[in-house]
Amino acid sequence: MSKKILIIGGVAGGASAAARARRLDESAQIIVFERGPHISFANCGLPYHIGGEIELREKLLLQTPESFNSRFNVDIRVQNEILAIDKQAKTVTVRDIVADKEYTESYDALILSPGAGPFVPPISGVRNHLTHTLRNVPDMDAIITSIEVNKPQHATVCGGGFIGLEMAEALRHRDIAVTLVELAPQVMAPVDIEIANVLHEELKQHNVDLKLGKALQAVAETTVSDSSLTLTLNDGSTLETNLLIMAVGVKPETALAVQAGLELGDFGGIKVNDAMQTSDESIFAVGDAIETAEFVTGEAMLAPLAGPANRQGRLAANVIFGSDETYKKTQGTAICKVFDLAVASTGMNEKTLLRKKMPYEKVYVHAMSHASYYPGAHPVSLKLLFNPENGKILGAQAVGKDGVDKRIDVLSVAQRAGLTVYDLQDLELCYAPPFGSARDVVNQAGLLASNVMKGDEVVFHSADIKQLADNQLLIDVRTEHEVDNMGMIPGAINIPVDDLRANLCNIDKQKEILVYCQVGLRGHVASTLLKNSGYKVKNLTGGFKTWKAFNY
Amino acid sequence: MSKKILIIGGVAGGASAAARARRLDESAQIIVFERGPHISFANCGLPYHIGGEIELREKLLLQTPESFNSRFNVDIRVQNEILAIDKQAKTVTVRDIVADKEYTESYDALILSPGAGPFVPPISGVRNHLTHTLRNVPDMDAIITSIEVNKPQHATVCGGGFIGLEMAEALRHRDIAVTLVELAPQVMAPVDIEIANVLHEELKQHNVDLKLGKALQAVAETTVSDSSLTLTLNDGSTLETNLLIMAVGVKPETALAVQAGLELGDFGGIKVNDAMQTSDESIFAVGDAIETAEFVTGEAMLAPLAGPANRQGRLAANVIFGSDETYKKTQGTAICKVFDLAVASTGMNEKTLLRKKMPYEKVYVHAMSHASYYPGAHPVSLKLLFNPENGKILGAQAVGKDGVDKRIDVLSVAQRAGLTVYDLQDLELCYAPPFGSARDVVNQAGLLASNVMKGDEVVFHSADIKQLADNQLLIDVRTEHEVDNMGMIPGAINIPVDDLRANLCNIDKQKEILVYCQVGLRGHVASTLLKNSGYKVKNLTGGFKTWKAFNY
Ligand SMILES: Cc1cc2nc3c(=O)[nH]c(=O)nc-3n(C[C@H](O)[C@H](O)[C@H](O)COP(=O)(O)OP(=O)(O)OC[C@H]3O[C@@H](n4cnc5c(N)ncnc54)[C@H](O)[C@@H]3O)c2cc1C
Ligand SMILES: Cc1cc2nc3c(=O)[nH]c(=O)nc-3n(C[C@H](O)[C@H](O)[C@H](O)COP(=O)(O)OP(=O)(O)OC[C@H]3O[C@@H](n4cnc5c(N)ncnc54)[C@H](O)[C@@H]3O)c2cc1C
Ligand SMILES: CC(C)(COP(=O)(O)OP(=O)(O)OC[C@H]1O[C@@H](n2cnc3c(N)ncnc32)[C@H](O)[C@@H]1OP(=O)(O)O)[C@@H](O)C(=O)NCCC(=O)NCCS
Ligand SMILES: CC(C)(COP(=O)(O)OP(=O)(O)OC[C@H]1O[C@@H](n2cnc3c(N)ncnc32)[C@H](O)[C@@H]1OP(=O)(O)O)[C@@H](O)C(=O)NCCC(=O)NCCS
Repeated sequence: MSKKILIIGGVAGGASAAARARRLDESAQIIVFERGPHISFANCGLPYHIGGEIELREKLLLQTPESFNSRFNVDIRVQNEILAIDKQAKTVTVRDIVADKEYTESYDALILSPGAGPFVPPISGVRNHLTHTLRNVPDMDAIITSIEVNKPQHATVCGGGFIGLEMAEALRHRDIAVTLVELAPQVMAPVDIEIANVLHEELKQHNVDLKLGKALQAVAETTVSDSSLTLTLNDGSTLETNLLIMAVGVKPETALAVQAGLELGDFGGIKVNDAMQTSDESIFAVGDAIETAEFVTGEAMLAPLAGPANRQGRLAANVIFGSDETYKKTQGTAICKVFDLAVASTGMNEKTLLRKKMPYEKVYVHAMSHASYYPGAHPVSLKLLFNPENGKILGAQAVGKDGVDKRIDVLSVAQRAGLTVYDLQDLELCYAPPFGSARDVVNQAGLLASNVMKGDEVVFHSADIKQLADNQLLIDVRTEHEVDNMGMIPGAINIPVDDLRANLCNIDKQKEILVYCQVGLRGHVASTLLKNSGYKVKNLTGGFKTWKAFNY
Repeated sequence: MSKKILIIGGVAGGASAAARARRLDESAQIIVFERGPHISFANCGLPYHIGGEIELREKLLLQTPESFNSRFNVDIRVQNEILAIDKQAKTVTVRDIVADKEYTESYDALILSPGAGPFVPPISGVRNHLTHTLRNVPDMDAIITSIEVNKPQHATVCGGGFIGLEMAEALRHRDIAVTLVELAPQVMAPVDIEIANVLHEELKQHNVDLKLGKALQAVAETTVSDSSLTLTLNDGSTLETNLLIMAVGVKPETALAVQAGLELGDFGGIKVNDAMQTSDESIFAVGDAIETAEFVTGEAMLAPLAGPANRQGRLAANVIFGSDETYKKTQGTAICKVFDLAVASTGMNEKTLLRKKMPYEKVYVHAMSHASYYPGAHPVSLKLLFNPENGKILGAQAVGKDGVDKRIDVLSVAQRAGLTVYDLQDLELCYAPPFGSARDVVNQAGLLASNVMKGDEVVFHSADIKQLADNQLLIDVRTEHEVDNMGMIPGAINIPVDDLRANLCNIDKQKEILVYCQVGLRGHVASTLLKNSGYKVKNLTGGFKTWKAFNY
């Protein structure tokens, strides 16, 4: 007897599961229920159509119910919402929204891929005609209509995650003044503050009025004829705006799972095993709605990302048709374009490592995206977190104008493969002047981290120089020119690296020497020189550039 | 007692060794001998200064003897050529070219990094004032002078390796008509013919007159007043040209090693162990002059690439100062810009696998460099070679306008880490619309290759359809529109994938069905449909696009 598979949600996880299920079994009965009017749309492209980079709306609709059906012989029911699951009877209750009818469907296997919805905090007045969230095509259409009809001069985006950042950029592309309000001290939670600070500068440069550490507290009462909103922030300040985008985060859609009595995890996502099975073995769940295992710790996490949703959707179908594959955990590799910059990360960040009290060390490298003498090279700022006991990669973050995706991809693969920082030294990456360097950013990070592992280089961090001790001497080894132009870290003296040998006689051997340069490389040359001359010495990893990023 | 280290060659391998040696030991005496006038120059940038992309000549001179000395306290002797090594006495004979004097230096350790010189076959008449090779700054200067003085209308480049290709492009940038002569049936030897064919099209599009399978046989006698050369090719044809660039390959500089009685390998490079030691334990050799171990087989190979030269130079210094590290073999990861395309590869190619009679399977994927709906996406054509017994990655090649470097880097890391094609399915690569896809090219290649490994997809190759057997049916599952525009493979019938189900009754179950689409993906959908309907079926990997690339 052929299987009957029901799938809830027709986008990343759901559509992938449906397509794969059909490829596995020509005779299975496969029905996809999608509450909204579209399946297989490009959620990730929505902000770019609002901003105008993606001109044609149709480009976002990757499949229609008809095209999907003629390709895969899958019964696609858009505007059909699942209201309830009866796991004993193995049936679901469906509401056909257009026909305004309810009906029941039975299943042999059920796949939940309902996604995550925008979380809107219960702020007074926030439900109004000028406030929007962005999850699907109708949301996008509503925002575009609001812009075209109301011609907002000013918009406010609440939330500095990737949807918030993309929306801020999209609105600036439309020449709308933008205020971005973020409760945390930084945007882009997956990266740490010193990487986020680079984004903060970029946002300011593009005239985004950035309000960090602030939250929206209230929206003054409005009527539909109002063309502006008065926002009150938690510092008591107020703000007039013509469009409010709420993008403070997403919440797994678990109403159905709760109703069906499926287990949830601690983060509020649906709990699944590594075969994507919920607490009911006939019910699978994938995508933004679930909790997945974090790669390093194996602990539960929410990872609302399209790649994992696709993999999980395919895996659920495989398991239903008898495969014993398992899900290989989630690193959470992610990237976001922020005006001219890209910011990306994989694995764990420092905040999380600190919170979990896990041992880690970190190094920073700022190196060119390709040979500096070939046009178009831009610095890539890379932060590498590793386990100081075994050298394993814990996580990586990067920001820059060019080549950021490539470096994080390389490190994501290295982490997944269980490589150590030692291995990064020897990676053979494509090199010709337009594409890379004979020693790539990632190789440099590997060299540096290996030196740290072996004790050949002792690094110190920006946070360690809040207050210099009496027995410490802080030496800036950059050129006079650099120092004049960029300033120094308070308390430092300047001895350019190339003058260091001649000046050793003036440097007190009793002191602990802290050296730094612009990015760390000349600091490394200086610190080996000093170390090999009998000094106790540390080098500031990431140099003045990272220090500055901490101290914007 | 501090060590005395002599280094022969002051560029990639030599300068890296010198800098590292100094960082390891402040008291060592380090002398670098460089025959030419410059050290640490950007060999790889030379063609781009000729072409004009790199405007400033100074940009290519990364260090001067003075700057290197003030940074590293290394005695740099340019225009000093080593004439002989006495390994018993541990001395070298040096000729100071400027002073026209010879002298002797002793060493505790000697590092050879003399590189590889352009190989110029003994062709009659080839040594003349209009013929050049390109290895260093004086060579570059001479080519530029020749262009400025002689104002060539037409240039000929002999050799389609990366230097030849870069020179062809550089000369076209200067609006000089270019003929490229290559003895092999393809340019860019590291990749296979169907990937190279894409380059051939690109070269033709940029008006490079490409002569494949041809060799230069003779240059008619010239006098210095001639402004053109008459070239005779091995097919008897002749060609008038105003500038001839010989770039048919490089040859390890082994004269010194031979004189000193050091062992050479079968490919004519200096033989070293995995600590970079030659057959004399006090003499190390690195870079283009040596033979290195190929990653997959461990067999000797020549790999004249800057990345390995840098790594090896550093390693030699490490070993001299007591480290027991070893060299981690060479994959030969390489990339070349060919006008608007990039072509890159890592690991072994199919030609070599065939020659070595090693078992392999291959798959092709053509997928977009980033989400197709976001502007600027271009197809990446990827060929993945793997071991059909264990799924290990043997090699990869890619060509395209965008994102080629990233994919080969990812696969290079995966190969080095010992991952299999199964692992590629789950790689978590950066995804947002401007940077990638939820399923990246590499993930797709992993899915496809895994399907092949498991027998879930049986692929066939372009070479298999030279002649269809009677019991075979070749079905083109693209749309009518595509077929009308691009033609079909001879012998095929057209049934669009979306019409296949309705047409099953017309397809003979006794036949072996061969399906193809444009790139392989719809072919996969079609083949699973047919397989699950009881047919014996194979899918053309890479589809019509790869077939076309074989049959340009
Ligand atoms: C604006 C935006 C930008 C994004 N950008 C990126 C990016 O750059 N990179 C990235 O990796 N990820 C990005 N994402 C996240 C990515 O889109 C999600 O991770 C992915 O779509 C999750 O897939 P899913 O199948 O779990 O959920 P979804 O794709 O959200 O699909 C769930 C579907 O289920 C339907 N549904 C829910 N409940 C029911 C029900 N009871 N009955 C019927 N249907 C139901 C919903 O209507 C919805 O269409 C972005 C998301 C958004 C909104
Ligand atoms: C035009 C061009 C483009 C290139 N592009 C790329 C690229 O894009 N990517 C890539 O990976 N690689 C590229 N390469 C190759 C790369 O430059 C080499 O792999 C690398 O430089 C090898 O380093 P090496 O130290 O072994 O030799 P070299 O860098 O060649 O240095 C050897 C030096 O030794 C000197 N020398 C030799 N014999 C003696 C002696 N007896 N006494 C004193 N001095 C001596 C020579 O004068 C020479 O300067 C390119 C090379 C060229 C020429
Ligand atoms: C469009 C959509 C339905 C595609 O689902 P899909 O068919 O499973 O996925 P793809 O088109 O990537 O194809 C992958 C399949 O083709 C195969 N394949 C890919 N390239 C191939 C090639 N060149 N040759 C042969 N097979 C190939 C893969 O092996 C895989 O098949 P398998 O699962 O049977 O092994 C689904 O991804 C979707 O709805 N996406 C839009 C929503 C979304 O993802 N949103 C978030 C991001 S914006
Ligand atoms: C310029 C040249 C002399 C540099 O040699 P180098 O100093 O060994 O190399 P780099 O400048 O890459 O520096 C690497 C060193 O800095 C360290 N480093 C790199 N970034 C660092 C950072 N941010 N913080 C601390 N240390 C850092 C590395 O660990 C390494 O030190 P180690 O070897 O002691 O571990 C040499 O590469 C050269 O001559 N190049 C030009 C020729 C050439 O390569 N041609 C072919 C390509 S065009």
